[in-house]
Amino acid sequence: MRDAYHEQLAALTDRLVEMTRLVRSAMSRGTTALLDADLQLAESVISQDAEVDRLYGEIESSIYELMALQQPVAVDLRTVVTALRMAADLERMGDLAEHIAKIARMRHPESAIPAELRGTVVEMGAIAENLITKTGSCIASRDTELAKELEKDDDDMDRLHRRLFRVLLSKNWQHGIEAAIDITLAGRYYERYADHAVRVAGDVVYLVTGTREEDLTTG
Amino acid sequence: MRDAYHEQLAALTDRLVEMTRLVRSAMSRGTTALLDADLQLAESVISQDAEVDRLYGEIESSIYELMALQQPVAVDLRTVVTALRMAADLERMGDLAEHIAKIARMRHPESAIPAELRGTVVEMGAIAENLITKTGSCIASRDTELAKELEKDDDDMDRLHRRLFRVLLSKNWQHGIEAAIDITLAGRYYERYADHAVRVAGDVVYLVTGTREEDLTTG
Repeated sequence: MRDAYHEQLAALTDRLVEMTRLVRSAMSRGTTALLDADLQLAESVISQDAEVDRLYGEIESSIYELMALQQPVAVDLRTVVTALRMAADLERMGDLAEHIAKIARMRHPESAIPAELRGTVVEMGAIAENLITKTGSCIASRDTELAKELEKDDDDMDRLHRRLFRVLLSKNWQHGIEAAIDITLAGRYYERYADHAVRVAGDVVYLVTGTREEDLTTG
Repeated sequence: MRDAYHEQLAALTDRLVEMTRLVRSAMSRGTTALLDADLQLAESVISQDAEVDRLYGEIESSIYELMALQQPVAVDLRTVVTALRMAADLERMGDLAEHIAKIARMRHPESAIPAELRGTVVEMGAIAENLITKTGSCIASRDTELAKELEKDDDDMDRLHRRLFRVLLSKNWQHGIEAAIDITLAGRYYERYADHAVRVAGDVVYLVTGTREEDLTTG
């Protein structure tokens, strides 16, 4: 029974890592679609979120099956329950990437991002990708030191998020209300994406150490 | 063992209902603080979110304890795992109410909501309260018919959310970028609050019927 359990657990870990790949790709393409007003790319992110949802459904089913068949207790039970939480966070990250693609689609053929904010959005996209890459590595390797790095990346994201608002609120802003709304929402989506990545990495730390850092994200 | 289990389960339900009361009160006060620029009320929402977080922590601990001591299987295990998910959604709703209070605090002594949007925000606040009240009743009574009503309330919230954008984007908008950002974010917080309420009610349906409606919120 232990062997079957550990095989199922390894399969679960693989699926979670696969989810990080999908939501990294979605965010990467979503950012490019947003910056370059690439409708085709935006559509691909939007349609492929179903793949993330499907994988989430599979993980959820496999966890309930694993609980039913193996009846894990103590640490093992905590592991599968936490995996469920991680999968839910990753599913949400897919939604957030999709939201960014939807902004790109709504403004096409214009870009929702004016020239003076391109650099900031490029950086936010890069940090988002960096975060989810590290999250995937954390899940695969259970590297708690790597997990701690994510906090710093998240601080960088928050700093860029504040920069967006400074530009929107400067006297030189000439792109009107619609662009301000798009950027406010896009900024929020990047920030939440980062928060969820940090949460997933925090769950890895929790699984390894058995203690949870104070992580009630208020973002 | 069954008796102890059912006692613990009843206590868990009570705590979840208590969480709905706290996050309803937070949203109610947050909305008033936002409309009336009431700094004291805003501060009370912000400081009292710790109470929601504390209750969430208690629920989480009690669930792990219950799993460890009772080793529930099948339906019982599904019940406690789902309760964990419900508690996480309710905790997040507390954060969203806090975010609304923070907008009120940031704009004080001005109100973040101009006169022409007061009516819409009043309605959004009323729907939010209505939703969480029904969610609390669903948890307590396991009334699946009531749970279905929440979908309709959520549609009303989405309609009001779209109305906010129409006003922001009308030619008559005279309140500038800062107010547009505040309203964009506040609108998003109300909409997400409603989504989480619907998710929790959906979890009640799932517990009663054993099947989950397609509920991967993409909001």
